[in-house]
Amino acid sequence: METVLHSLLPETTDAPQRLHAAMQYAVLDGGKRVRPLLVFAAGELFEADTVNMARAAAAVELIHAYSLVHDDMPCMDDDALRRGKPTVHKQFDEATALLVGDALQAQAFEILANSPLEASRKVAMLSTLAQAAGSRGMCGGQAIDLAAVGETLTLAELEQMHKLKTGALLQAAVMLGALAGKTLLAAEAAALHAYADAIGLAFQVVDDILDATADSATLGKTAGKDAADNKPTYVSLLGLDASLVLAEKLRLDAHGALLPFGDGAERLRELADLIVQRKT
Amino acid sequence: METVLHSLLPETTDAPQRLHAAMQYAVLDGGKRVRPLLVFAAGELFEADTVNMARAAAAVELIHAYSLVHDDMPCMDDDALRRGKPTVHKQFDEATALLVGDALQAQAFEILANSPLEASRKVAMLSTLAQAAGSRGMCGGQAIDLAAVGETLTLAELEQMHKLKTGALLQAAVMLGALAGKTLLAAEAAALHAYADAIGLAFQVVDDILDATADSATLGKTAGKDAADNKPTYVSLLGLDASLVLAEKLRLDAHGALLPFGDGAERLRELADLIVQRKT
Repeated sequence: METVLHSLLPETTDAPQRLHAAMQYAVLDGGKRVRPLLVFAAGELFEADTVNMARAAAAVELIHAYSLVHDDMPCMDDDALRRGKPTVHKQFDEATALLVGDALQAQAFEILANSPLEASRKVAMLSTLAQAAGSRGMCGGQAIDLAAVGETLTLAELEQMHKLKTGALLQAAVMLGALAGKTLLAAEAAALHAYADAIGLAFQVVDDILDATADSATLGKTAGKDAADNKPTYVSLLGLDASLVLAEKLRLDAHGALLPFGDGAERLRELADLIVQRKT
Repeated sequence: METVLHSLLPETTDAPQRLHAAMQYAVLDGGKRVRPLLVFAAGELFEADTVNMARAAAAVELIHAYSLVHDDMPCMDDDALRRGKPTVHKQFDEATALLVGDALQAQAFEILANSPLEASRKVAMLSTLAQAAGSRGMCGGQAIDLAAVGETLTLAELEQMHKLKTGALLQAAVMLGALAGKTLLAAEAAALHAYADAIGLAFQVVDDILDATADSATLGKTAGKDAADNKPTYVSLLGLDASLVLAEKLRLDAHGALLPFGDGAERLRELADLIVQRKT
């Protein structure tokens, strides 16, 4: 995946060099690559071509990477550390961080549009990714997150926020992987949506658990930040024990959603386990 | 165009309401709509369907609108006035302005992906727009612009900056309009590129002339800002008289590029005139 991402980003020797260096800095040598793993796992289910899976995985990861760059900026979360390194606006400057995020988003769509896949499935991928990234997806979730600082959310409101903020892009990863393999039947799409909903929520519950229990060195980002920022989390709403129980329930929900697919879904099952059992 | 843009933006009654209100604020009731006019003019040349032209025009205009929102932010140009109204970060807040831009970019690609056009031409449009918006297009131009503050540029460097910063998206507007009508022959694409290059550069030369000669009330944005910011412009490099001569030469170049198309290109010719002869 690192090789693919490197090959699909502009060279740092091409103008504008500093922007291209900052784009590579934002994307390469870091991150758990959960979204690419989901693309490949869902693609394997339908025997997708490797090149198309790789490009879809890169596109989703670039959207994720851009959102982190913008999210870390002073006007948002104002974070200095990401994946164990200075954030982009610290390493470069704020204007560059803004442009890096903007350019990575465009690059994601360009990579999809130029993949060697039949046009109708490319359009389905582009539509899915654009919707997941936009105001009814990831950006919308971030807007709700911003408005929620210092507020008391209900569990339903917290869930809705995360469904958009993190869940939409994780779901897009699953759907793009599957679309790299074939045009989906309604029942296949529904089962994958159910799987993605479960792991999306599980991902956030586990994030909240780790933020409350792990240290910054292990996480590669500032731990305990949610509590310090007075942000509502699953741990603050449910407590630690109930959050652990919820994560395990969601893991089993994800497994249940995959039952119709049989052995082909083994990687997707493993990823549900990884997402819940990860330590960073 | 205002009706189309309104209908393609999320309703302000949909959650997250504040983000959707800010998106509408950033896009509606303002702007010269030069890029949509170019889409329609190029579409008319090949008798494109109105719905497809309208969606392509909206997509290009949303990319333009998002770039203005981000460009006005404190870490970039730090501008308080745009189209005669407070800029988005002034009217709302910086975090919202950041998310508005991000969401508008995603919305642009979503609008194209869901237009009722054959898939292969949609993919061509999506690829063209993504490339024009990214680090080898608009974002790259902005990065060069940032790096140029206080520097002495040659005329060639200034031209290269504007080719990316403004020219790439104007060219995308022309190409998307044409693609709404048909798959282009190489000679048609080359002629339209030549037209777009000429008007793109003319647009910037006239912008620099207006920035140096008009007042803020007429422009609807802060006049004289380039000189105040010590930014290189055509007026600062060539002087006012030579800049006026260059703008007129580029207008004639644009007309020349359209010769192969005959009467069908009348609107494109009118737009070249409008771009050079505009007062705001």
